[in-house]
Amino acid sequence: MAENKIPYKIYLDENEIPKQWYNVRADMKNKPAPLLNPQTHKPLKAEELYPIFCKELVAQELNDTDAYIDIPEEIQDFYKMYRPSPLIRAYFLEKALDTPAKIYYKFEGNNTSGSHKLNSAIAQAYYAKKQGLKGVTTETGAGQWGTALAMACSYFGLDCKVYMVKVSYEQKPFRREVMRTYGASVTPSPSTTTEVGRKILEAHPGTSGSLGCAISEAVEVATKTEGYRYVLGSVLNQVLLHQSVIGLESKAALDKYGVKPDIIIGCAGGGSNLGGLISPFMGEKLRGEADYRIIAVEPASCPSFTRGKFAYDYCDTGMVCPLAKMYTLGSGFIPSANHAGGLRYHGMSSTLSQLYHDGLMEATSVEQTAVFEAAEKFARVEGILPAPESSHAIRVAVDEALKCKETGEEKTILFGLTGTGYFDMVAYQKFNDGEMSDYIPTDEELQKGFDGLPKVD
Amino acid sequence: MAENKIPYKIYLDENEIPKQWYNVRADMKNKPAPLLNPQTHKPLKAEELYPIFCKELVAQELNDTDAYIDIPEEIQDFYKMYRPSPLIRAYFLEKALDTPAKIYYKFEGNNTSGSHKLNSAIAQAYYAKKQGLKGVTTETGAGQWGTALAMACSYFGLDCKVYMVKVSYEQKPFRREVMRTYGASVTPSPSTTTEVGRKILEAHPGTSGSLGCAISEAVEVATKTEGYRYVLGSVLNQVLLHQSVIGLESKAALDKYGVKPDIIIGCAGGGSNLGGLISPFMGEKLRGEADYRIIAVEPASCPSFTRGKFAYDYCDTGMVCPLAKMYTLGSGFIPSANHAGGLRYHGMSSTLSQLYHDGLMEATSVEQTAVFEAAEKFARVEGILPAPESSHAIRVAVDEALKCKETGEEKTILFGLTGTGYFDMVAYQKFNDGEMSDYIPTDEELQKGFDGLPKVD
Repeated sequence: MAENKIPYKIYLDENEIPKQWYNVRADMKNKPAPLLNPQTHKPLKAEELYPIFCKELVAQELNDTDAYIDIPEEIQDFYKMYRPSPLIRAYFLEKALDTPAKIYYKFEGNNTSGSHKLNSAIAQAYYAKKQGLKGVTTETGAGQWGTALAMACSYFGLDCKVYMVKVSYEQKPFRREVMRTYGASVTPSPSTTTEVGRKILEAHPGTSGSLGCAISEAVEVATKTEGYRYVLGSVLNQVLLHQSVIGLESKAALDKYGVKPDIIIGCAGGGSNLGGLISPFMGEKLRGEADYRIIAVEPASCPSFTRGKFAYDYCDTGMVCPLAKMYTLGSGFIPSANHAGGLRYHGMSSTLSQLYHDGLMEATSVEQTAVFEAAEKFARVEGILPAPESSHAIRVAVDEALKCKETGEEKTILFGLTGTGYFDMVAYQKFNDGEMSDYIPTDEELQKGFDGLPKVD
Repeated sequence: MAENKIPYKIYLDENEIPKQWYNVRADMKNKPAPLLNPQTHKPLKAEELYPIFCKELVAQELNDTDAYIDIPEEIQDFYKMYRPSPLIRAYFLEKALDTPAKIYYKFEGNNTSGSHKLNSAIAQAYYAKKQGLKGVTTETGAGQWGTALAMACSYFGLDCKVYMVKVSYEQKPFRREVMRTYGASVTPSPSTTTEVGRKILEAHPGTSGSLGCAISEAVEVATKTEGYRYVLGSVLNQVLLHQSVIGLESKAALDKYGVKPDIIIGCAGGGSNLGGLISPFMGEKLRGEADYRIIAVEPASCPSFTRGKFAYDYCDTGMVCPLAKMYTLGSGFIPSANHAGGLRYHGMSSTLSQLYHDGLMEATSVEQTAVFEAAEKFARVEGILPAPESSHAIRVAVDEALKCKETGEEKTILFGLTGTGYFDMVAYQKFNDGEMSDYIPTDEELQKGFDGLPKVD
């Protein structure tokens, strides 16, 4: 290994952390369709979003013309706490696979939230603070977003109210405790603290909750409590904008060594990690400056890209949020209990949906047993225990590298390793005990979700 | 923060990872006392240790003359997987404390074992592999050492048998699962797989185990199984040698910016982290080239340095291991259930004990509620959730920085942040719920431990 010129880990200098986010929408010929008012089905005006989101974040949400947006200095300072994140050359994995492919991954798990979520959490907390708010509300499923937001709010002295899907609240007490350690209040959802929560509990007394319900509770509290707004960790344009630091750093690190990836791979739930990782590369592609093969990887149990419809849909099951045009399984689709909680969302970022629709990226789906096989192999040779979500990207990166072994091609593969799996050991245990099963929804099951799509002219 | 010349994180280049370990014993005028045969009380010969430890590790254990020992290339390669670890300037903490002190910490938690333990685990696994062994045995309490060894054995294709203290096995199922993910077999101790385990179970049917018992089981299996040896994660000279990479990297990073620490602080259980962190600084001190204030921090509930005796004692409660001269509370001392499992050891590294005895370093003890107060403050401003063990060092670093605030002195403080607390959320929960208590053993309780010390002429 000593003879390799490219180090195992490429760290940028601190002054090379991006000072501007990149807004890929500015370079898109076909812009993502606008958000619609869920009642009137008319495009939403900024003012209509102010009761839910901070003003500056609304501006970012709607901005599809400025390619670069300055990162405020306070956020740049916070980024120095855990960024730049390393771009790692997977020498050990390449050797284990005996592949001529060159594999790189951007590791975003080296912070206490355990994932890339902190990149947007700190931005959203900053704008809330700047607007003079008292606090923010949000929902969390797997818990990485909630943890990231708790950390960000603690830094700016904001109150943070997290609605955590009840089943996760009970099964992941340690995640909950990390959030509490950072000063957040964590409420199992559905709860009796909201109108929508009480209604759901009345209708379904034994329910273990869902992300859609938790969103509705968090939105209700934000809109009804003075000095509070709601924040979201994925799907939204603003989140992809903040997450562009992943791709910008990756590109800067590769450029230092004159490396161009052939294939870029990311897991896709709501799209925050994938959108962030690919954005500057997609920008080059949109401007005709370079070409890349870009692959979104989703769980076979929740296949929005690969089996969903490109249509307007509700972002939440409570149907209180704006309508977004996206690849969706329908807001009524209940994903099976796949262990990659972060990928169990019925829809997909509007921006990524448009890019996929326009043929600028591919998508594929994988089953969870195959995902954990790749995760364990990766952990053993690369030393990092990956999150189940991230392992979807690992699976496809490994498969592409094995194809190179067959063909002898020396392709360069870049994938996003979004986080660590320390709080997912229940899933690893199932895998270690041979008790993990796969599940693929039938066409009939998917049809039920599609039947609930709103009719938009 | 932009105006600071010293970055938030100082990363050495990959080629600056140490290529030699530093053996502080070579520079000690008063060498640590030799290990004794537990039966004859005569100094142990190398051959007597071969049934327990690998030959090359025995040579390292007994070597107190060579100041530098080459790190084999295979180990250097593995180090590149997670080293160099960052030396972090605690700008956020300094600001929160409003202190003129300059605080640095060496963060060893950025790997899946969650701690510095991997530095020695990979070395011990390498020498076992080189000797043609099939596998190794060990014990683990908190689980960081067991995880590190599982990772190292997986890398070299060695079998790894871990005896995990039963109470931890049951309370920390996720730690156990990480070890299994890396292919280790994990047995709750005491178990029926060993003679000593069966004896203990017969005498104490409901026992939840102890580190001393787990050591005895691991040693029995190693000595009775062909092709196996026993490995240990702390206390031993060889472990301090391997851990010197922590101090060597810290010093190299500080030297780059012309910074000399005034105070160096580390938590102390068996001494592996502290010994590794301070070694090159202690070397300068021993050679009269520089002076540093060096502080060992231990829990008030297990105060080997501050209230123990400097005497020969058994390293394990089963009394099968060699006798070592060290600061000890007696091998029969049962530490209370302090949450810093890694610091609950009755004895202390012979090397550090001699240095302390010779007045070359200080020691202090702290209570766990105060430790968790510091841990939470640190987590909120620095973003890293520290292990309870590491937080002992944080507590004293914060106290020293607050003294500087009073006096106005701009002292430079370096401390070791040995690991992360992701698997210690039960402890954080107790703290968050206000249910954490402190415990200081009485003189009478300590006397019972001293009464069991072996009589050595």
